[in-house]
Amino acid sequence: MAAKDNLSAVLRKVNDIQMEQREIPQPTDTEVLLAVHSVGICGSDVHYWTHGAIGDFVVKMPMVLGHETSGTVVAVGSKVTSLKPGDRVAVEPGVPCRMCDYCKGARYNLCLEMKFHATPPYHGSLTRYFAHPADFCYKLPDHVSYEEGALLEPLSVGVHACRRAGVTIGHTVLICGAGPIGLVNLLTAKAMGASKVCITDIDASRLERAKQLGADWTVQVNTIVNETSTQFADRIIVAIGGHADVTIECSGAESSIQSAIYATKSGGVLVLVGLGSATVNIPIVNAAVREVDIRGIFRYANCYPLALSMVASGKVDVKPLITHRFTLEQTLEAFETARTGRDNAIKVMIKCAQD
Amino acid sequence: MAAKDNLSAVLRKVNDIQMEQREIPQPTDTEVLLAVHSVGICGSDVHYWTHGAIGDFVVKMPMVLGHETSGTVVAVGSKVTSLKPGDRVAVEPGVPCRMCDYCKGARYNLCLEMKFHATPPYHGSLTRYFAHPADFCYKLPDHVSYEEGALLEPLSVGVHACRRAGVTIGHTVLICGAGPIGLVNLLTAKAMGASKVCITDIDASRLERAKQLGADWTVQVNTIVNETSTQFADRIIVAIGGHADVTIECSGAESSIQSAIYATKSGGVLVLVGLGSATVNIPIVNAAVREVDIRGIFRYANCYPLALSMVASGKVDVKPLITHRFTLEQTLEAFETARTGRDNAIKVMIKCAQD
Amino acid sequence: MAAKDNLSAVLRKVNDIQMEQREIPQPTDTEVLLAVHSVGICGSDVHYWTHGAIGDFVVKMPMVLGHETSGTVVAVGSKVTSLKPGDRVAVEPGVPCRMCDYCKGARYNLCLEMKFHATPPYHGSLTRYFAHPADFCYKLPDHVSYEEGALLEPLSVGVHACRRAGVTIGHTVLICGAGPIGLVNLLTAKAMGASKVCITDIDASRLERAKQLGADWTVQVNTIVNETSTQFADRIIVAIGGHADVTIECSGAESSIQSAIYATKSGGVLVLVGLGSATVNIPIVNAAVREVDIRGIFRYANCYPLALSMVASGKVDVKPLITHRFTLEQTLEAFETARTGRDNAIKVMIKCAQD
Amino acid sequence: MAAKDNLSAVLRKVNDIQMEQREIPQPTDTEVLLAVHSVGICGSDVHYWTHGAIGDFVVKMPMVLGHETSGTVVAVGSKVTSLKPGDRVAVEPGVPCRMCDYCKGARYNLCLEMKFHATPPYHGSLTRYFAHPADFCYKLPDHVSYEEGALLEPLSVGVHACRRAGVTIGHTVLICGAGPIGLVNLLTAKAMGASKVCITDIDASRLERAKQLGADWTVQVNTIVNETSTQFADRIIVAIGGHADVTIECSGAESSIQSAIYATKSGGVLVLVGLGSATVNIPIVNAAVREVDIRGIFRYANCYPLALSMVASGKVDVKPLITHRFTLEQTLEAFETARTGRDNAIKVMIKCAQD
Repeated sequence: MAAKDNLSAVLRKVNDIQMEQREIPQPTDTEVLLAVHSVGICGSDVHYWTHGAIGDFVVKMPMVLGHETSGTVVAVGSKVTSLKPGDRVAVEPGVPCRMCDYCKGARYNLCLEMKFHATPPYHGSLTRYFAHPADFCYKLPDHVSYEEGALLEPLSVGVHACRRAGVTIGHTVLICGAGPIGLVNLLTAKAMGASKVCITDIDASRLERAKQLGADWTVQVNTIVNETSTQFADRIIVAIGGHADVTIECSGAESSIQSAIYATKSGGVLVLVGLGSATVNIPIVNAAVREVDIRGIFRYANCYPLALSMVASGKVDVKPLITHRFTLEQTLEAFETARTGRDNAIKVMIKCAQD
Repeated sequence: MAAKDNLSAVLRKVNDIQMEQREIPQPTDTEVLLAVHSVGICGSDVHYWTHGAIGDFVVKMPMVLGHETSGTVVAVGSKVTSLKPGDRVAVEPGVPCRMCDYCKGARYNLCLEMKFHATPPYHGSLTRYFAHPADFCYKLPDHVSYEEGALLEPLSVGVHACRRAGVTIGHTVLICGAGPIGLVNLLTAKAMGASKVCITDIDASRLERAKQLGADWTVQVNTIVNETSTQFADRIIVAIGGHADVTIECSGAESSIQSAIYATKSGGVLVLVGLGSATVNIPIVNAAVREVDIRGIFRYANCYPLALSMVASGKVDVKPLITHRFTLEQTLEAFETARTGRDNAIKVMIKCAQD
Repeated sequence: MAAKDNLSAVLRKVNDIQMEQREIPQPTDTEVLLAVHSVGICGSDVHYWTHGAIGDFVVKMPMVLGHETSGTVVAVGSKVTSLKPGDRVAVEPGVPCRMCDYCKGARYNLCLEMKFHATPPYHGSLTRYFAHPADFCYKLPDHVSYEEGALLEPLSVGVHACRRAGVTIGHTVLICGAGPIGLVNLLTAKAMGASKVCITDIDASRLERAKQLGADWTVQVNTIVNETSTQFADRIIVAIGGHADVTIECSGAESSIQSAIYATKSGGVLVLVGLGSATVNIPIVNAAVREVDIRGIFRYANCYPLALSMVASGKVDVKPLITHRFTLEQTLEAFETARTGRDNAIKVMIKCAQD
Repeated sequence: MAAKDNLSAVLRKVNDIQMEQREIPQPTDTEVLLAVHSVGICGSDVHYWTHGAIGDFVVKMPMVLGHETSGTVVAVGSKVTSLKPGDRVAVEPGVPCRMCDYCKGARYNLCLEMKFHATPPYHGSLTRYFAHPADFCYKLPDHVSYEEGALLEPLSVGVHACRRAGVTIGHTVLICGAGPIGLVNLLTAKAMGASKVCITDIDASRLERAKQLGADWTVQVNTIVNETSTQFADRIIVAIGGHADVTIECSGAESSIQSAIYATKSGGVLVLVGLGSATVNIPIVNAAVREVDIRGIFRYANCYPLALSMVASGKVDVKPLITHRFTLEQTLEAFETARTGRDNAIKVMIKCAQD
């Protein structure tokens, strides 16, 4: 390995991303060294950039951004048998402790020792090279592109949410919010057998795109009339012709969470994906006596293989989510595009490879 | 059947219970006629009496109260083969439509056509005789008393709550509220294998009784210092020596629901049994990112047989819950006792049989 | 209702189907009277015809055949509100007692009092008119044909099997047997998100059709060389490139069941749909120490709505399963076709309507 | 650490156990060094001794026996924070790879890279000192003895079996075989809420002990009359007064597995714990059409903490299982006792500590 260039997008402090050279790491026995190919920008990357923190996670030291990643294996540790140099892989960005009850109990996303890309104090993947445990790298079949590989990260969020929701055949699914995460949930819900999906948003162009991606109904939030959450739920129910079997809330807005409860059928499930205010006023008696279960999600566990299989088998086409492409050197422009959502940006992709 | 006396406790309007004679009904082909023995008073009976309504259920016509019932079969319909005159039975008070998706899907408690004792407009069981579908009457073994039979109703609430919570061996369970429903949850959680139970209440004497019934720890709500819900949760966590695996909230108080979330471990479950304000401020981000699931319950389904087996096998002793006994003629005094909770009343039992 | 013609296909004894006129029944309060449109012939219909019995079910009295049915509502009982004359419906052929633990517990297919079409002593649907409980009739949308409605019956078997198997996204599913039931399982597994399906059969033309219907791999049973069940499993594993996540056995052959176990991955599930010999030699240690669960199915419960939604939403196209069509008057010829499987018969459909 | 004595019970070949001195290992960063206190003898230890192999696991190199272990921490690796010297612990004897899908999916017992004590080629614990990953050592509370700690191993088998069976309140459980594993299943089933347990065996004294440990009914296998498996099942059904909700088969005998199916209710579960012949004749149609699920188990995963909590909370008393005690030096006599089952031996315990 004679490579020397390891240009990296480092968040030094709020609103301060610097492109810096960093040392190329050595993989341990069970790691591989990866040449990064594509990295998608996530809302959390932008939020760290603009706010320096998300909840209790505060950026105190310079931190490489990026966690939606694909790349090429360039070297492997001495104990790695599952991968070899040249393999194209998608990278699951969180590495848990492997020892706690959560890790042993299939819920490693809740591991308290989780090291997750671009969540302080851990560096991300907007760089040329980094090392990663081999078992969190998933080999891409030839017909799955690097960009699709990078998109397995948000798609895994959809998989985790839809699994927590119990989406299955015959279901009518309500998705609140038609941003990138709403859209991956739409794709996943359909792939898991949902008969019909209704999606809501405040933005008509987003709803239009959702329709192109397979939404059966769209309901736009009315920003002119001051609509109550029950009124909005009623409009959803009219559109669907009944209540939703399960609802996946991706906006985090209080009124949307309220409507989501009202629009979910008794015995159904509401999954909270979007997060906004720390505390929210919930119509708890309505949810409780109708046994509408409320379940949050935190990232995902054991979802990458499923996300990959959905893409590889053609059940899901994530490529339309990509609206903008930049090089690693153009990182700042890429972030600016993601932040403003200009030109109907959905997913902004950064190419770190130089070929 | 020459019986003529069918004295009944009829709620005519708010604060107006009348003892009236009512016609003795004829059982249909699939029903049995029951001579009522014991009826426990539930908080909902008292609430209808003092408020005339619970949520959307409004008492508009005179209604017989009572729904925690045991009795003796005195006649059986032509198609009834499971019971015969003389059989002692516990009575599950709700009869669903048997035809809808909920009824076919093991969640008949959510049936929209449910006819439930003493929920308007359906009459209850504080009477000498009433007819009931045979398949919702559960034969009591000789060694299970009528009073225990009547207590299967609140115990079934505990069974449903603990099943929804997924209580099992190894669990540390937090129960918020040490009233009758908190206590049946305590008993059920232990019977389902919970290692340890912590219970909270505002009342020291209730906590004392909970301890006698098997609670491992008690934490009293501090009403002098203005404690935040996180501070109260911290006291619970200190008492337990960690977070609860599952929490069963039986108070319905907003601050208690908040503390319940904070005191439940990541990946755990909070079941809402107690109901208070229609809307409650919830620390939703805390619950969501730690994947603390929030599940309400509405009555129960398929729980009576389990409640009976717990009592019959000696796993649970519900008799200590009964603190007061009255005759049907003393109904008003019984309700007054239940309303005020005087003399440390937990469960007030009315004997309708005249032997 | 002035209709008088109620021509019916009555099995009088082994190998003796008679076309007879029978009285048109009156629907009860909760039933509808149906004018039958289409009835598919099932292997069990043929078996009763040729053997007079299936296991403990013995035809002792003349019995109308047929149980895969769609029709038109011509009259409704006084309490029926869900349907009206003119509605086109698919008919779930089994009516349980609605009172036992199985009925209340979402497993009504196991109800001991089940009355199932064309299972002695209950009459089937190869007739012009019959009465049926309204809640077991499912209204067809305009774009779903009567033939598709009749096919919801075998499709429901696929739904029940795939649900019992836990088929979901990312799964590689092995289906043993490419007859009608194997094919509905293929369609259902794909609709539930399975990434890949491998199907086996002894007949090359059946495998060819399976491929057209979406099978990713086919493996033909070798009838020339005397292959062991492990050898056959090894060929399947080579085809798939690994073990199956779940396997659905539709042949009932001993060697196929054995291969199914060997070809299923550790921790996977084998669902037994096909039935052959009463007892079978099972490699039980292999299944047990690898925790390959073995689950049978008996018909289905709560599957019709899902089967209908899969067809109505276009996720599944069952029409290619129909290879032959006859009129009610041609019943004998239809049965002969089904019995011999001539002309590559898969599903033989009988039209009972005379329009 | 100045200890030099590391006497170990080494199986050199069939029927050849030698007491040898072996080097005391150094713990790695994440391991602890343990001074062994108590080791229970398991049937598999005896089987390796008398046969040199179990299935595909063949003893080719000298191997230390023993895997039911408790001990004292004497040194800790540099990264170990959960334990300190002096801590008394129970030792889970299998260490999985932590990287494969099984390890990440809560089924690490199925890990193909599992290193399990006294399963060739891995050494066991019948020694004075060995090193073990800290996260597979469970700290014992002061009131739980070393012997109880060693018994957590077989108890974990009971926990895994009863969890796979879904034992819960209200269940009637049938356990076939009253040896050590049958008895730990009896204890666990009761702790998980089973109302009643019926246990079978060929040996009257074993049944007597089972009764003392809480069995509600016992049924002795009739070895004089040649009873069919259905006849034996019928006797069980008569004893219980119905079918078992779940059955846990611990004998591995073909006829017992058959009876277990017949005696389990429709919709119930049969868990196979005991293993005998590689292939067994199964009444598969009976199991399939009644949806009696057949599930094997392989060791356990995530069960030690539950087993410990059951013992620590007093829900289960495993001490009566111990019938014989030996020192490490007496290993051969201990094995001879376990092999012959003389003096009604159930669990034979070897003390490796010299205090």
